[in-house]
Amino acid sequence: MMTVSATFTASPTPAGQAQRPLEQLINAFARLPGVGPKTAQRYAFFVLKQPPEVAQLIASAITAAKAEVKSCQVCHHWSHQDPCEICENPKRNALQLCVVESQQDVFALERTQTFTGKYHVLGGLIAPLDGVGPDQLTIRTLLERLPIAAAEPTMEVMEVILALPPSTEGDTTSLYLSRILKPLGVKVSRIAYGLPVGGDLDYADQLTLTRALDGRTSF
Amino acid sequence: MMTVSATFTASPTPAGQAQRPLEQLINAFARLPGVGPKTAQRYAFFVLKQPPEVAQLIASAITAAKAEVKSCQVCHHWSHQDPCEICENPKRNALQLCVVESQQDVFALERTQTFTGKYHVLGGLIAPLDGVGPDQLTIRTLLERLPIAAAEPTMEVMEVILALPPSTEGDTTSLYLSRILKPLGVKVSRIAYGLPVGGDLDYADQLTLTRALDGRTSF
Repeated sequence: MMTVSATFTASPTPAGQAQRPLEQLINAFARLPGVGPKTAQRYAFFVLKQPPEVAQLIASAITAAKAEVKSCQVCHHWSHQDPCEICENPKRNALQLCVVESQQDVFALERTQTFTGKYHVLGGLIAPLDGVGPDQLTIRTLLERLPIAAAEPTMEVMEVILALPPSTEGDTTSLYLSRILKPLGVKVSRIAYGLPVGGDLDYADQLTLTRALDGRTSF
Repeated sequence: MMTVSATFTASPTPAGQAQRPLEQLINAFARLPGVGPKTAQRYAFFVLKQPPEVAQLIASAITAAKAEVKSCQVCHHWSHQDPCEICENPKRNALQLCVVESQQDVFALERTQTFTGKYHVLGGLIAPLDGVGPDQLTIRTLLERLPIAAAEPTMEVMEVILALPPSTEGDTTSLYLSRILKPLGVKVSRIAYGLPVGGDLDYADQLTLTRALDGRTSF
């Protein structure tokens, strides 16, 4: 039906003059990912209609989280303590290390409640076209976490599970890591790529189906 | 494909213990309208990845807007000044008063840049089933803004334009207002309801088409 793409332009602020509080709030919300001017306006109007405590709660949650949540020095995951709760948990299997691209991936894997090892957040993927090489990632600290096989020959073999996305960059990074990790005497594996649960063969793209075929297991 | 509806449950906080900063931030964002746990998590992760200035900018915009934006005592629209910029603007036609349900509607009408009169925000619609009667709306202050025809017979006739939504409550409120306003000697009109510009007859619902037919004008 009718499409209105106009932004908040009610009596626009003259150039050089300070923005008014409501405009500032709308512009602040419009910085959030996937939030356009219409949604930002909706959020701003919502805040104005709430009791002051709710607005204060949102504002202070932003300030507090930004101030208190830091990157864990061991695994680079977000936490309000350092080392993070996962690194410090003695119940987690220290011999399984799951390598992921970002902190979001840790949350996604934790939701499954099946992985009991620890994590290592790379902070990105190797992408030569974007100027991201191995040095920009946390590969150095990953290597520091591995036992030196030669030094302690009786030590149990450690497993590094690569859980990187099935993309060119993900594959490149997986290949790079497996090449530098295997000579160190650790077992390197990677998560399975294939048809998602509930997914329809008919709707799956060619690459996913190719991956599903390549990764077939005996039944 | 795969549908994951799980919320942020990574190592949940034990009952009775204070929420951690990241959880608090996700819960704060989840209060915004139309924001579910997944989107709230996305916003929270975005904030954590931003430089501290951006997080501070969003937080202080919320606090500032909530503290500085108030309801105009004359028209009940939001503004950082009282009376608001529209009420105070001598270039706006004081003889045309557009009655709307909410502050958002004022912004919507201002975007058209065609209406040069002033506004009156009712703050709702008459909805007996929800317990909203005329007393809960700003009808008393609306009447105070009208010239008393008997007192100044030479005064120009004022026009009240009802711009309420085409719903049962909107129609009830329009009817109620026209019945109390007409005896006061003001001209009462209402905006046209019909097919939106760019709208397709084929896709328009029955009620819209009925309204469009009822509101036909000679060509």
